[in-house]
Amino acid sequence: MSAAASALDALKRELGELKDFDRIAALLAWDQQVMMPPDGAAGRADQLSTLGRLIHERSTSPELGKLLDVAEPVAAKLDPDSDDARLVKVARREFEREVKVPQDLRAAITRTCSESYPVWVEARQKSDFAAFLPYLEKTLELKRRYIECMAPETEPYDALLDEFEQGMTTAEIRPIFARLKEVLIPLVRAVGSSDAVDDAPLRRQLPVAGLREIEQRALAAAGFDPDAFRLDTTVHPFETAIGISDIRLSTRYEVEGLESLFSSVHEFGHGLYEHQIAPELDSGLLARGASLGWHESQSLLWENLIGRSRPFWQRFAPDLSEIFPDQFGSLGSAEVYALVNKVRPDFIRVEADEATYSLHVIVRFELEQEMLSGELALSDLPSAWNQRMHDYLGVEVPEDRLGVLQDVHWSQGSLGYFPTYSLGHLRASQLWQRIASELPELPEEIARGEFEALREWLRENVHRHGMKFTPAELQERVLGGPIDPEPFISRLREKLAGIYGQALIP
Amino acid sequence: MSAAASALDALKRELGELKDFDRIAALLAWDQQVMMPPDGAAGRADQLSTLGRLIHERSTSPELGKLLDVAEPVAAKLDPDSDDARLVKVARREFEREVKVPQDLRAAITRTCSESYPVWVEARQKSDFAAFLPYLEKTLELKRRYIECMAPETEPYDALLDEFEQGMTTAEIRPIFARLKEVLIPLVRAVGSSDAVDDAPLRRQLPVAGLREIEQRALAAAGFDPDAFRLDTTVHPFETAIGISDIRLSTRYEVEGLESLFSSVHEFGHGLYEHQIAPELDSGLLARGASLGWHESQSLLWENLIGRSRPFWQRFAPDLSEIFPDQFGSLGSAEVYALVNKVRPDFIRVEADEATYSLHVIVRFELEQEMLSGELALSDLPSAWNQRMHDYLGVEVPEDRLGVLQDVHWSQGSLGYFPTYSLGHLRASQLWQRIASELPELPEEIARGEFEALREWLRENVHRHGMKFTPAELQERVLGGPIDPEPFISRLREKLAGIYGQALIP
Repeated sequence: MSAAASALDALKRELGELKDFDRIAALLAWDQQVMMPPDGAAGRADQLSTLGRLIHERSTSPELGKLLDVAEPVAAKLDPDSDDARLVKVARREFEREVKVPQDLRAAITRTCSESYPVWVEARQKSDFAAFLPYLEKTLELKRRYIECMAPETEPYDALLDEFEQGMTTAEIRPIFARLKEVLIPLVRAVGSSDAVDDAPLRRQLPVAGLREIEQRALAAAGFDPDAFRLDTTVHPFETAIGISDIRLSTRYEVEGLESLFSSVHEFGHGLYEHQIAPELDSGLLARGASLGWHESQSLLWENLIGRSRPFWQRFAPDLSEIFPDQFGSLGSAEVYALVNKVRPDFIRVEADEATYSLHVIVRFELEQEMLSGELALSDLPSAWNQRMHDYLGVEVPEDRLGVLQDVHWSQGSLGYFPTYSLGHLRASQLWQRIASELPELPEEIARGEFEALREWLRENVHRHGMKFTPAELQERVLGGPIDPEPFISRLREKLAGIYGQALIP
Repeated sequence: MSAAASALDALKRELGELKDFDRIAALLAWDQQVMMPPDGAAGRADQLSTLGRLIHERSTSPELGKLLDVAEPVAAKLDPDSDDARLVKVARREFEREVKVPQDLRAAITRTCSESYPVWVEARQKSDFAAFLPYLEKTLELKRRYIECMAPETEPYDALLDEFEQGMTTAEIRPIFARLKEVLIPLVRAVGSSDAVDDAPLRRQLPVAGLREIEQRALAAAGFDPDAFRLDTTVHPFETAIGISDIRLSTRYEVEGLESLFSSVHEFGHGLYEHQIAPELDSGLLARGASLGWHESQSLLWENLIGRSRPFWQRFAPDLSEIFPDQFGSLGSAEVYALVNKVRPDFIRVEADEATYSLHVIVRFELEQEMLSGELALSDLPSAWNQRMHDYLGVEVPEDRLGVLQDVHWSQGSLGYFPTYSLGHLRASQLWQRIASELPELPEEIARGEFEALREWLRENVHRHGMKFTPAELQERVLGGPIDPEPFISRLREKLAGIYGQALIP
């Protein structure tokens, strides 16, 4: 073997082992949430912390730095879009990011999160923001130190965004969110109180056996392959990949109406993304989605653009009537379609519909920046939250449990995460526009329950690349330009006009 | 902290991390057998091999050797029975054992096993011993090299035994097995062909829902705590501990009669052993059973001395009649007791009853030694096997699938493992003798489905020590002397006299 090939090989071997350890950690976390008997918690915390230390040591080790130093000149001679050249580039970026943060700061963040989470759980239960406040203060303080290490020269919030959506800037998001507010606030006001759609059939718990049955039929058609996927039940739905051929989804059935179906289809979208990554990337660092915003584009595409589409319900409304004759026996596909797309301004982000969702995100995006800058005193956060919910969504938050305390993210140190949800919505609509033009038969196929052409399109254009490209590079390759809210806005307007009548749409 | 305390602490930290990695490996293996979608196999093999390399490196590292060197003089000043003194002693023993075997030999053994296993699977299926022969030859050759590294001065088979039952010698086992043969061969001949017990109700597949129901009732009474235990379904039943508070059992239902119940109770016995290890040992090397033979004593105690006892069926025969009215509706507890204790000489070890089981083991014990010494040419192994099965059990093996190819052990390089099963039988009876004298109320308690006093006895006398003591030391502490076949023999004779009549018992 040449010296060049061997330099690359040594790096790839180390990155491959790191990938294995990451996946082992993912399995430990999955098992903890899905399978572990409750008394196993303390032991599992030890196992995760031992493994986490190992991963941190090896991903910041001087040896890895040297492997990179030797591999870089070799990679520089390769096609810059080749897997190996990209691997070295991404590995260098991640290495530099890891070593920038001093070990004591990392440890303080980890410790604060693990102290903070149980406090948040109890504070939410009791709707007691004051109990959570000191932990949020501490987290914010650590985040400021983190920003100082990462990118002291840019807008502070950029360093937080970069953790979840590499390269994304506050400056890029701000005008996009301004445009969404301009459109969505009046739109939600206009249709949110309409009684044109009576969604009473969706406002109750449906029998779990039936929910499993409709889900099973939908997922089987979508491409859920039991040789490579599992689906389990958990308190909070999620997806995790233990490898591109070992995809684990979870859902929950103790929810209103068809939420469990949409949730499973959503997680399937995440899972399909990782399942369709090119096999040659599987053993290394690149076998992940390009970013959270790209991941969310895939889950939301399946949940909203497919699962809440007319053709989907042309296919599955008869199944719904058959499975739930009492609840849906008399409803045709057009009626089910209207039901599952009803706009309902409410307090809780995770239950929000397509029209209100981004307004929930924008509330958080704005507050996070004001918290970070010190413009907003943390003790005033609940009232600022409630005021903004009133202004943007027209709802009056009755207690902090349903307001500022609803999300887990801040208790886990995840500031700058929320915008990726909206980026996912916008990208999904941009993708859909291109898909619609390239797969003109797709609506008919979906109405027949056929998803293969769609899966192949997603594989070819998005999934197979894993994280070879940065979020922005992938955006440019697949969508030919930056994130654009207009496809989402026009699709949403058109959809709601079809349901509520053109006259109601501002 | 004093220098002494810190030397011990540094060692304990390293051993604690090694323990975490061992448990992580156990979880990966559990998940592979119980949960993983089949296409995840290749990725899981990578994860296990990466983790295995890490564990091997760290458990043979010069750093660990130095930690031991520094900790030993400190431990020498402690009470020799203290947890810390014992920990250092066991850690030194395991370290020396690990470093004795050169890395290339370990790698060759691992490689040969992973090549050998699928060949054995196919060879068994096709009853084709010739296909497996070269792999068995290779394994034997490597085992000879292994013995050469470990203990060239002792009887060769001792080094193999020592892997599974530390300190046990061939010289100690030989007279025990001679005595068992002397008793069991005529006993099995006498009662094996008797038609006094018609076990037709146990020779068919019972409805799975009912098997789950009787199992659930029995395990709940025995002490299966869902906060710390799981029970799943797999092709081969097993138990694994991810920690003393995270015990995972598996069973299978596609078997004849009540095999699934006995199998679950057996695995529960293994699980209870690890669950009742003292919590202060949980984070370290000592949180394991003392040996395979000790482990098996616990599973067999629950399976045979409880699960196949009169009082157990006084408690559960009514449940059996209620759950399976067609099959057991008319049978009282005495009849069920006789059914589940019928002696049936047959080909397959894992399906053997208490009387025939050790004869299966003795066949293997004798053949393994002859193979190792070269006295028996491997090509003659099938006929030697069949001859011995004829001589000891009176059965004619029709094909190698049901004979020499039935067990997985040799394909995994496990020679010297089989005797631990019989040691388990013998220890279980020795323990039972002591338990009977110390817990005179136990039969009445079991007849009421109460097991707490028994669990506490086992915890206090056996379980809590983990592997603090060597198998022989624990034997001395709990049973006051070496392994003794007589309690097993007299109990078995008495039991079979009760079922078949005294006249039939030689």
